[in-house]
Amino acid sequence: MRAHNFSAGPAGLPLPALEEAKAELLDFEETGMSILEQSHRAAPYAAVHAEVMDLLRKLANVPDTHDILLLQGGASLQFAMVPMNFLPPGRSADYLVTGVWGQKALAEASRVGRARTAADPIEADGRYLRLPTPEELRLDPDAAYVHVTSNNTVFGTQWKAYPETGEVPLVADFSSDFLSRPVDVSRFKLIYAGAQKNLGPSGVVVVLVDREWMQSARDDVPTILRYATHAKAGSLYNTPPTFSIYLMRNVLRWLDGMGGPAAMETRNAQKAGALYAALEECAPVYRLPVKAEDRSVMNVVFHLGDASLDEAFLKGAKEARLVGLKGHRTAGGMRASLYNAVGPSDVEALVAYLRDFAKRNG
Amino acid sequence: MRAHNFSAGPAGLPLPALEEAKAELLDFEETGMSILEQSHRAAPYAAVHAEVMDLLRKLANVPDTHDILLLQGGASLQFAMVPMNFLPPGRSADYLVTGVWGQKALAEASRVGRARTAADPIEADGRYLRLPTPEELRLDPDAAYVHVTSNNTVFGTQWKAYPETGEVPLVADFSSDFLSRPVDVSRFKLIYAGAQKNLGPSGVVVVLVDREWMQSARDDVPTILRYATHAKAGSLYNTPPTFSIYLMRNVLRWLDGMGGPAAMETRNAQKAGALYAALEECAPVYRLPVKAEDRSVMNVVFHLGDASLDEAFLKGAKEARLVGLKGHRTAGGMRASLYNAVGPSDVEALVAYLRDFAKRNG
Repeated sequence: MRAHNFSAGPAGLPLPALEEAKAELLDFEETGMSILEQSHRAAPYAAVHAEVMDLLRKLANVPDTHDILLLQGGASLQFAMVPMNFLPPGRSADYLVTGVWGQKALAEASRVGRARTAADPIEADGRYLRLPTPEELRLDPDAAYVHVTSNNTVFGTQWKAYPETGEVPLVADFSSDFLSRPVDVSRFKLIYAGAQKNLGPSGVVVVLVDREWMQSARDDVPTILRYATHAKAGSLYNTPPTFSIYLMRNVLRWLDGMGGPAAMETRNAQKAGALYAALEECAPVYRLPVKAEDRSVMNVVFHLGDASLDEAFLKGAKEARLVGLKGHRTAGGMRASLYNAVGPSDVEALVAYLRDFAKRNG
Repeated sequence: MRAHNFSAGPAGLPLPALEEAKAELLDFEETGMSILEQSHRAAPYAAVHAEVMDLLRKLANVPDTHDILLLQGGASLQFAMVPMNFLPPGRSADYLVTGVWGQKALAEASRVGRARTAADPIEADGRYLRLPTPEELRLDPDAAYVHVTSNNTVFGTQWKAYPETGEVPLVADFSSDFLSRPVDVSRFKLIYAGAQKNLGPSGVVVVLVDREWMQSARDDVPTILRYATHAKAGSLYNTPPTFSIYLMRNVLRWLDGMGGPAAMETRNAQKAGALYAALEECAPVYRLPVKAEDRSVMNVVFHLGDASLDEAFLKGAKEARLVGLKGHRTAGGMRASLYNAVGPSDVEALVAYLRDFAKRNG
């Protein structure tokens, strides 16, 4: 029996994407070889690579101004590559810090060049329970770029409208909500997204980058760490993580069949809406720490009113095959991640458990 | 029917490793989830990660002085990480250039700091047909390190005994012959090996690094690009490429069952011996460009005496389900890669085809 997987990432994948992989794992398209065994320069893999590029351009509605790259190293390497490419000596970059990932991006940029904190609504206890208000943004009009984390997996906040940065290029970490809703890519000079939430397995990161801006980047960094290197080579400069990209193909095919990000936006809003409503309804057994208008549709963070019940809650959840609900250690409590592959029926099972647990412990 | 896969990489994998992956792809150890869907912090994946570390330590006979790291970015990112960590300003590093990969490693190091060419036995036409002789090595006794490429996939040369560098740390790219024979790891301060030849799928690279040397590295580089970061975190600093590592586990289990690198050394020598012998026997239909004592056991490079037959050769090979035989564009001709997963029966099929083709075209 399949578990209800609420893991923060690597996360659940659409079952059809896995079934397709299983069916052709030993023999890909009658080549007598697995997709894992194909040269990245040969036709069978080349077709997969091209299909992923096409599906990404279609599903993310990527304008012609932007190149699509498939890279390794996850968002964590992007934390370094962005400033290595776009933060030259004598300039500084603005970071909107809204959680652990923003802190890490800022720290990495500070090792490369001069990075400014343009907002940081941290609580006294180190948690982030809201996004900055427009009045709190201290943006530098001369910044090399502004960096924002679209969705915060750890604390469960998510930008609904992205900040206005005028002429300053906007760069965004979309690792945990890419393709979960339509986004106007043209507003961003660069977007990056690790695959292991909404796109596929870990080991590959998608980058959308404005071609003109990319050409303005520093060229005194190692070849492998320049975006232009990978753009020029169609993300085949070195051997790509072929199986991860292949599995992304299966996930994107599924997403396309489901109606793409527009359909997902509705579905994800319904899933999160049902869960937040149930949690509020069962107060004070459950508490929602995050400011209502900043709550994430992807990661629902909640606490038990009585933290001594945490262990019993998780034990019962496990028995009901509800997995991945323990919160991140820096946030505490619980977290249910509701990425695209999590179905309405998974959320229904969780809501039923939440109500039952509340009844027994109210 | 399974193809005879002589691809240079990504390359053929042991069938039992793929079958194991297929059998448990939808439900890993009765968790109700695929290994692809497991959190990298949860117990099921943690056990896989630990098993890979244990198998690598056993099979590569890694001494206690060395840490084992599992990283992303392939050997190409190692070309940059090695000098970023170990080539400080004011020092220089020696590169033994014996082919395309050595050239790339040198070029990347030259972008980071001062890199010297300590040997470069290139032919007038840009090919490499031999390794440098001991007399040709111009080693700098003050070098920060000496870098060597153990096996050259493109031109088909392979070091049999590694150069003596005295007190200067030796660093080696073992991407294409790691675990294909026993190696005295203690002679190297750092070894790196992309997985997609002998270890598993693309997307993961194994690094063995002397702990003490690692602690002497530069600390003014981005956190994600420091070896010490990953060593401290047990290669879980950021989300690892979990499926690639899982599949490496299956391959290492198979290798262990086969008797490890010692057994592979014998098997690989027999495979390459049979192939080189058949090619020599069928001269002048086939020509072997590489100096006999420098020939690789992993990548057998050969040419047709009459290059106008190349296309017919490859067409016939394809019909016999012999794939991946076209040589690298910079070397021309043909190449048969004989990594661990290539079986004696694959080589027999190739030898039969070579003899038949020679008879028909002699």
